[in-house]
Amino acid sequence: MGTELLLGQIVDTNSSWIGEQLALAGIDSHHQVKVGDNFERMRAVLTQALERSDSVIMCGGLGPTQDDITREVIAATLGVKLVRRDDLVERISAVFGGRGRAMPENNLRQADVPHGAEVLPVMPGTAPGFKVESGAKAVYAVPGVPWEMQQMVGECVIGDLKQRAGITAVIKSRTLRTWGDSESGLAEKLHEEIQRLDETGECTIAFLASGMEGLKVRLTAKAPSEEAVDAILADEERIVRGIIGDIVFGIDDETMESAVLDALRRRGWTLALAESLTGGLIGSRITAVAGASDVFRGGVVSYAGDVKFDLLGVPEGRVVSEQAVTAMARGAAKLLGADCAIAVTGVAGPDSLDGEAPGTVWMATLVAGEVEANRVVFPFDRERTRQFTTVSVLNNLRVRILASR
Amino acid sequence: MGTELLLGQIVDTNSSWIGEQLALAGIDSHHQVKVGDNFERMRAVLTQALERSDSVIMCGGLGPTQDDITREVIAATLGVKLVRRDDLVERISAVFGGRGRAMPENNLRQADVPHGAEVLPVMPGTAPGFKVESGAKAVYAVPGVPWEMQQMVGECVIGDLKQRAGITAVIKSRTLRTWGDSESGLAEKLHEEIQRLDETGECTIAFLASGMEGLKVRLTAKAPSEEAVDAILADEERIVRGIIGDIVFGIDDETMESAVLDALRRRGWTLALAESLTGGLIGSRITAVAGASDVFRGGVVSYAGDVKFDLLGVPEGRVVSEQAVTAMARGAAKLLGADCAIAVTGVAGPDSLDGEAPGTVWMATLVAGEVEANRVVFPFDRERTRQFTTVSVLNNLRVRILASR
Repeated sequence: MGTELLLGQIVDTNSSWIGEQLALAGIDSHHQVKVGDNFERMRAVLTQALERSDSVIMCGGLGPTQDDITREVIAATLGVKLVRRDDLVERISAVFGGRGRAMPENNLRQADVPHGAEVLPVMPGTAPGFKVESGAKAVYAVPGVPWEMQQMVGECVIGDLKQRAGITAVIKSRTLRTWGDSESGLAEKLHEEIQRLDETGECTIAFLASGMEGLKVRLTAKAPSEEAVDAILADEERIVRGIIGDIVFGIDDETMESAVLDALRRRGWTLALAESLTGGLIGSRITAVAGASDVFRGGVVSYAGDVKFDLLGVPEGRVVSEQAVTAMARGAAKLLGADCAIAVTGVAGPDSLDGEAPGTVWMATLVAGEVEANRVVFPFDRERTRQFTTVSVLNNLRVRILASR
Repeated sequence: MGTELLLGQIVDTNSSWIGEQLALAGIDSHHQVKVGDNFERMRAVLTQALERSDSVIMCGGLGPTQDDITREVIAATLGVKLVRRDDLVERISAVFGGRGRAMPENNLRQADVPHGAEVLPVMPGTAPGFKVESGAKAVYAVPGVPWEMQQMVGECVIGDLKQRAGITAVIKSRTLRTWGDSESGLAEKLHEEIQRLDETGECTIAFLASGMEGLKVRLTAKAPSEEAVDAILADEERIVRGIIGDIVFGIDDETMESAVLDALRRRGWTLALAESLTGGLIGSRITAVAGASDVFRGGVVSYAGDVKFDLLGVPEGRVVSEQAVTAMARGAAKLLGADCAIAVTGVAGPDSLDGEAPGTVWMATLVAGEVEANRVVFPFDRERTRQFTTVSVLNNLRVRILASR
């Protein structure tokens, strides 16, 4: 929903996310409509959606401003009044209190819900979501802010829809996250297994690109019970891992950084970083993982050349070189008192540096006293070079730790 | 269009791109519908769209496979036959010939168009696009492959639509990026100006949330000429800045980090970072800006407590405190030889630290020898706390540099 979407100021990732969740839950989704913040048009769209569907999820238009009219549209379409809920007034005020800001009068509009509405128990932001039933049908209203919407839909809406649809079969997916092979490479390796599954029909395999984060191999199974599905997925995971090996770095939401932290934790090792090219990107990703502190010591972002020399003991000279990146890794481990280290230096671009072309990267890992360094020239722009370098060097460390047994 | 979109296997960037082009051309776009590759549902959607709109752009479903049925749907809806066009058969064969591949029989389906259709002159891929008129209304069919779609819509459809709508005016937008006020707060401050514009009608103001990156105030003007539009936007920007002041940190695509770097560059100052909570996030954002190296010295990611003490000279004691964050800022500036510094320490969560609750953040900025520190308690999860902290402290530095004149 929303004029911003129609005007293309925001790319609508919500509808695809919701569509995927519905598909995984086994709920058919036949139409997705974007409509501007216009009362009559929104009402017409909702009326029509209720005619052709059993349930409708309305996303967005629950904010505090005058053009946030989803509440009003739902109430009018269902022929009920809006009622201001004191409990919501309190919850909304509480959020503002926490930020030490006074709550603008407008925000009270967010405490209004259609008469008979059931407020969703989850409220990550300041906008409450709700469900209103109309005969046998249900309208869900959730905010357009993706992280708020995802929490509400994931925790409240999908389950409720499955119940309403009487879906008892359990459909679950497990995603094996891989790094280091192409989609066609994976498809070739898994060709026979995919054919076997086509015959048995108990499980499917799909490949999903995830940009800089490698390729996902998604296993999806359907069975009468949670236990049965989990068993199928567990068996299939074992089979697939047996075929594609340690390019699998994680499962589902496990990230490369969490895989690295787990590998270090199992060995009781600590980590230090020396980042030039990436400027803190590696550290920011590692510290995004809760509990990183028991493994991660810290890092030095040595952006200016002399910082590399003074702080990390890099010998004077070319800073995009094997000599420099090796010294950076050893320097970081020593300075920060860590067992292992990652170091990165390179040319993000757009300009050349040290006579090296943009995209040229030296990355090093220090494991068990040994530094391994390698040079890569990425064909990407500045940001993709930094992102790709981050995942590449994290994977290098992961593989070396696994191999160091 | 398309089942893959509904299933969320592809994020639909086409509709937002088309929406933006239409908006820039001054053509109202009130509805966008995604529907699965199902004949009856597609026909119902097209019929409805033709009832409520003057023109319809159908995107996708022009491929060679059996589920590409847009051609059939349009013909049936308009009550005309599909005709196979020899000229298209040749063009399609030519494309395949050019790629040195034999043309699969299926691809001949792409040479079918509804009777009376006008084939679009641009054909970047193997799928021809076309326009069919129905009374005073027009239906455009373009492929779903983004680069093919964009070339056809950009070069053929938009201009044709403007002509049909008799639009000669130029429409342009300028976005003021702000940080530090709520949407409702901005709405209140700009209330009178928005009313004034409603009367003059020469320009409109819209608020767009941009997640953790603050709020955008978008000015859109319409005038007979490019020059006239630019003049209106320049005047309006001056007025709006006069009202909401220095919470405006940038224009259009300018980021908070680029605004900070520009402010430092203008003063000839350099920057150092001491990051604990954010673990490198601030550095990664700053170094994402090309040319950061002339201002940014580097940073210390002091994640482990003793790193703060040893490397940054933080006095032993509680690490989430004003004393600690102040020492971190001074320590980073000294260690890295910078004029200004940013320091952040806090509790990302999920667990408490130093008896402080998750979301508790101490942030400091060092400008002209003076450290200013403030404590915030964010109501967010770990990642949003880190993101919000990053933008907040960058903005604190920006505002202090501007004030230091």
